[in-house]
Amino acid sequence: MIIDVHGHYTTAPKALEAWRNRQIASVAEPAARPRPEELKISDDELRETIESNQLARMRERGVDLTIFSPRASFMAHHIGDFQVSSTWAAICNELCYRVSELFPEHFVPAAMLPQSPGVAPATCIPELVKCVEQYGNVAINLNPDPSGGHWTSPPLTDRHWYPLYEKMVEYDIPAMIHVSTSCNAAFHTTGAHYINADTTAFMQLIQGDLFRDFPTLRLVIPHGGGAAPYHWGRYRGLAQELKKPPLVEHVMRNVFFDTCVYHQPGIDLLLDVVPLDNVLFASEMIGAVRGIDPQTGHHYDDTRRYVEATTRLAPAQRQQVYDGNVRRVYPRLAAALARKGK
Amino acid sequence: MIIDVHGHYTTAPKALEAWRNRQIASVAEPAARPRPEELKISDDELRETIESNQLARMRERGVDLTIFSPRASFMAHHIGDFQVSSTWAAICNELCYRVSELFPEHFVPAAMLPQSPGVAPATCIPELVKCVEQYGNVAINLNPDPSGGHWTSPPLTDRHWYPLYEKMVEYDIPAMIHVSTSCNAAFHTTGAHYINADTTAFMQLIQGDLFRDFPTLRLVIPHGGGAAPYHWGRYRGLAQELKKPPLVEHVMRNVFFDTCVYHQPGIDLLLDVVPLDNVLFASEMIGAVRGIDPQTGHHYDDTRRYVEATTRLAPAQRQQVYDGNVRRVYPRLAAALARKGK
Repeated sequence: MIIDVHGHYTTAPKALEAWRNRQIASVAEPAARPRPEELKISDDELRETIESNQLARMRERGVDLTIFSPRASFMAHHIGDFQVSSTWAAICNELCYRVSELFPEHFVPAAMLPQSPGVAPATCIPELVKCVEQYGNVAINLNPDPSGGHWTSPPLTDRHWYPLYEKMVEYDIPAMIHVSTSCNAAFHTTGAHYINADTTAFMQLIQGDLFRDFPTLRLVIPHGGGAAPYHWGRYRGLAQELKKPPLVEHVMRNVFFDTCVYHQPGIDLLLDVVPLDNVLFASEMIGAVRGIDPQTGHHYDDTRRYVEATTRLAPAQRQQVYDGNVRRVYPRLAAALARKGK
Repeated sequence: MIIDVHGHYTTAPKALEAWRNRQIASVAEPAARPRPEELKISDDELRETIESNQLARMRERGVDLTIFSPRASFMAHHIGDFQVSSTWAAICNELCYRVSELFPEHFVPAAMLPQSPGVAPATCIPELVKCVEQYGNVAINLNPDPSGGHWTSPPLTDRHWYPLYEKMVEYDIPAMIHVSTSCNAAFHTTGAHYINADTTAFMQLIQGDLFRDFPTLRLVIPHGGGAAPYHWGRYRGLAQELKKPPLVEHVMRNVFFDTCVYHQPGIDLLLDVVPLDNVLFASEMIGAVRGIDPQTGHHYDDTRRYVEATTRLAPAQRQQVYDGNVRRVYPRLAAALARKGK
């Protein structure tokens, strides 16, 4: 199988955005907030947005299954309070669940959390429990900066986050470390904030000793690990300066990078420096970069082409990136596939 | 010649740090602040710190000349007010100038600016003028985030920064875009904040149209351009989404990346994707990563080895990275060398 671990519902029906805009407009006025049941999206509408977009691309590209979560830039945890985030997360997660029920062969859900700046992460646990137990979610997206570019939360290695990690370990689910939209004018959302967050998270994990406390915790750093593979020598050297064990022992038993790197030399470098066990196939299509690369004539985000074309992988290794590693990192997905004889 | 465009005086005599600590301790009490003349460092002390450190390494590595600026992480523009930064910048710039006078064949100074959060960049012009006109500085370091990790300044494309750009154009000097220490617990200084700043600056330049207003302005993005080369497809694609011209036209006439990437695959990727005209030799030694790489037996920051070993450069191209490109981007250095018949 070919499994894409990083897809968001970026093409949801416009009614979702309209509802969200009403919610945002009434942030200061709780009584005026729209009720969840005012949002009406039919199964046909969901089918149409998926069949003509993500599923069409998956078929073109030969991708079998996508781990599918709410649109990352729309999480916008910085807006409103916990109640606002909570209602919004519940709506978005329900839609991804419905997509997974409509296309059970092609989509498996991962949950966004109702994070809110300054609010304890433990408040996200009820939504997480519902998503895993009732919706069959196989992972969560964890935002290391719910402030949206002001970075007011403690590092990921801080005990602040431990209640979530405990629940993740209990359920044996990984988290993708994924920020949302930037409300800091210095940071372009997908060109700076996303990539910076990946780099920041990786360095936080090097500085700390999180996996001593949680030896089975698994974190996926998207967008090819931010800047980390390109600066792999710097990170190996910084771990050494900090008197930590080598990266492969210190963090790479627990940290995984996806292949959302939109050109061949980047994918080649990722595979040159990062151990093969730590690379997971992904595209994040239809996402930040939707155009066609004039240098190749293909979509920038058609990462399968780069993984196919790379000289760094033998066929069995390619299958490991597409499938074997994914099942190891997402055991609930592996179990669901096994139940179907896949 | 082999010119390293990115060196900081990280090995200054301890008296400098002691003076700075006194200054920091009296930030709230202007009357108690130490006077600049209380800092006494002899020429012999300067000679000793350079000869046993940077110059020794340059000789080992066959590097002829370093563009030398005050220690980046010590700039700490977020501490105190403009007066604090102004006194501190003057002291640090004077020391680098003295080093360049003691070792005129090996060091040419670049200036730090007395930036301060919320203070207009034009206030830095007198220090800049002194450093260029009296000290022979050939470049400046410009901090896009004087808050130290809170990113409260407008993007580099904002008119906020234009007075500095006007002066740079008048003097025909480039700026290296270089942050200082992070006082945000989320960001490790050299592992996250530095690299993020590079990525952030590059994306700001893509979003804006700065070089339409300043067609001859030149900005050096250090640390190999942050994450940009690894994600070159993303940045080409984002420029396209933003309806900007291709990167080579839109920003790469004015933006240059250095070779401070501490492993062979990173240097190879840089040279694979970034036009040769835009790459400048640098090491930032003795800096963030001072150790020896057990995989090679050599210092991580001995970037000359990677540039020598890469299969991507013919000898004339290597010389362009070491020398030709540097003289083009730093014309005041080129003129100074020409006056010496070099």
